[in-house]
Amino acid sequence: MHKKKNIVILGAGYGGIMTTKKLQKMLRGHEAEITLVNINDYHYQATWLHENAAGTLHHDRSRVDIKDVIDLDKVNFIKDRVLCIKPEKKTVKLERQEIGYDILVVALGFEAATFGIPGLEEHAFTISDINSARLLREHLEYNFALYHNEREKNSARLNIVVGGGGFTGIEYIGELANRIPRLCEEYDIEKSQVRMINLEATPSILPNFDQQLIEYATNSLEARGVEFITGAVVKECRPDRIIYEKDGKEEEVPTMTTVWAAGVKANSIVEKAGLETIHGKVEVRKDMRAPEYDEIFVMGDCALIRNPDTGTPYPPTAQIAIQQSSIVAHNVRSLIHGGELKDFKPTPLGTIASLGNNDAVATVFHRYQLRGWKATAAKRLSENRYLLKLGGVSLLMKKGKFNFFY
Amino acid sequence: MHKKKNIVILGAGYGGIMTTKKLQKMLRGHEAEITLVNINDYHYQATWLHENAAGTLHHDRSRVDIKDVIDLDKVNFIKDRVLCIKPEKKTVKLERQEIGYDILVVALGFEAATFGIPGLEEHAFTISDINSARLLREHLEYNFALYHNEREKNSARLNIVVGGGGFTGIEYIGELANRIPRLCEEYDIEKSQVRMINLEATPSILPNFDQQLIEYATNSLEARGVEFITGAVVKECRPDRIIYEKDGKEEEVPTMTTVWAAGVKANSIVEKAGLETIHGKVEVRKDMRAPEYDEIFVMGDCALIRNPDTGTPYPPTAQIAIQQSSIVAHNVRSLIHGGELKDFKPTPLGTIASLGNNDAVATVFHRYQLRGWKATAAKRLSENRYLLKLGGVSLLMKKGKFNFFY
Repeated sequence: MHKKKNIVILGAGYGGIMTTKKLQKMLRGHEAEITLVNINDYHYQATWLHENAAGTLHHDRSRVDIKDVIDLDKVNFIKDRVLCIKPEKKTVKLERQEIGYDILVVALGFEAATFGIPGLEEHAFTISDINSARLLREHLEYNFALYHNEREKNSARLNIVVGGGGFTGIEYIGELANRIPRLCEEYDIEKSQVRMINLEATPSILPNFDQQLIEYATNSLEARGVEFITGAVVKECRPDRIIYEKDGKEEEVPTMTTVWAAGVKANSIVEKAGLETIHGKVEVRKDMRAPEYDEIFVMGDCALIRNPDTGTPYPPTAQIAIQQSSIVAHNVRSLIHGGELKDFKPTPLGTIASLGNNDAVATVFHRYQLRGWKATAAKRLSENRYLLKLGGVSLLMKKGKFNFFY
Repeated sequence: MHKKKNIVILGAGYGGIMTTKKLQKMLRGHEAEITLVNINDYHYQATWLHENAAGTLHHDRSRVDIKDVIDLDKVNFIKDRVLCIKPEKKTVKLERQEIGYDILVVALGFEAATFGIPGLEEHAFTISDINSARLLREHLEYNFALYHNEREKNSARLNIVVGGGGFTGIEYIGELANRIPRLCEEYDIEKSQVRMINLEATPSILPNFDQQLIEYATNSLEARGVEFITGAVVKECRPDRIIYEKDGKEEEVPTMTTVWAAGVKANSIVEKAGLETIHGKVEVRKDMRAPEYDEIFVMGDCALIRNPDTGTPYPPTAQIAIQQSSIVAHNVRSLIHGGELKDFKPTPLGTIASLGNNDAVATVFHRYQLRGWKATAAKRLSENRYLLKLGGVSLLMKKGKFNFFY
């Protein structure tokens, strides 16, 4: 008989929790000990954080207690912060203990990438997890509340600058456009006094979308008061302003609220582990294992996988992480049972960017375009499908979004 | 025929708005021009602000649009800030204009008195109006939201210090005791990590109440986690701590939230007007007029009236301001019609301090003591009675408090 294997999964994001869930079904108790490590005792819908950060959806809707979706009789859950991975010793150092593993799954997610731009790390807000999302929501409210308490009115309190016209930036500013009128009412502020500004370094927002959808998104958001400044390269962030360069000229906007949504990178623990990385990510083998270690899988935002046709990396999405979990779980099982390891091949289903206000743009199967409530409905359907997979009907009923048509 | 008289009322607090309301009934359009000046276009229940500031009652419940209770066909309403009163010229300088008067009613309310204690003015929060109340509410939430976003946990974010064990301080900390458990849930904080501290310079809280009621209040609040430190003289307030002296020793509490509720004074415009004042208040004649000017009435927090039996000033309460409005309105009318001026005699009905949680202590007619839900019910009845007087049944139904028994 084999010695019982220790499987350790780091991170309970999309990739980590779905891998754990699948392994808990696929393996028997005498075959392996499964341990899931996560900093919080909850998992969250990262694709809803922009709504939590705008204050249009309560963060409790976005999070799911791990005990509600993982069987804690079968999985050993440790709530702790991962400090470092020691591949040579096959251990992981946590804040409160050090644990050993036979097989490791690294699914530690992303952090904001600030590219060394001065002041961003200290003064900009990010939408990275539940804590930072509700902080941003409160920061907005606090500045609106301060406005009428100062004799010298400070317009920087009412200007909100979002750096980055990609997915997160656009989805966040779309929610903001919904929230601002209500915030204005709450704090006796004229809507015309508030500015919502999107700064994008490239010439266009939503670079992965077709021109028609980009125009649709731009019009939808501008109609609700959003200003776009493209070709604007952020130079510095200070507590009371953001400085950027456009057409060779330095410009600035007074603001207490800069939201940095212009880049993410893999959790820096991956790089510090001594694994070979490209821009902080591990370019995994086809079976999702790290090149140098047969017992380490890397997935989600921490893994780099190239489109074999174009050579460019796939964007790190929830969709891909969830798809990877099937392969990673299968391959972990194969390592234990001695079966064959499968290769990961992503099935890109589509990309949907919500614009707030029950509006969205979507590209489905690389061919079809959707916009407006149909795109919103498509997004909600896919999110509900995930909740169903994660926690069954009861979770879907508790946290799902069913308002498809308004 | 007389020249039409200009009556100007400064301030739409309890005294100002009730005087305006009575004058609008008592005088005909050809007799006088009535002008009400207020910094906001709403009146508010100042006795509910502590609930708004704790976040247990929305501030919109506490405020009433002036246009909903004053007939703007009969009263000229100016939304502006009063900068100064010029009694010699019989004019009032506002931020955007200067207006003349024949008869002036000064009902400009209170401001926080910080007695020159270093740092209080800059760093402490007050509960003085709608703006400062909702700012305090947001400040609490913001600090709770920040807590989990800092690697180095800062307990100062979870300590709330209320300076002053009088009416406002006790009522506020009672509401806080209700709010904190909900705030803890919202921000994933253990209730045991939060401290609510009341600092009182004298040996006892609620100095105007009987010993039995003080004990009742103390027990009720301590049972809900409030700490009392009496005999504590505040020495300095810094952004991250409060420093006080007790038994000759200097102590400090780390806190980002010091609420100063240990003293109010008359609006400083009164003193700057050159009127004769005692501690910033005008010791008015029996008919509520300023000693030096036959055409200036001063009321509410700006007026000082002594109890003829003891010689000590009456405390400035909503109750007294409302009672004064009858006399002031009558006497203004007499000045115009040539009738007799009446003297003001307060009718002290009772004092009720709410403790949150449907608990309160009350002294009625100087004889009866009430505590618990009976005292709460008494308080709500008196507030509802005021709403009825101010805006009739429709206002009472909209803003009244009807949950007497739970």
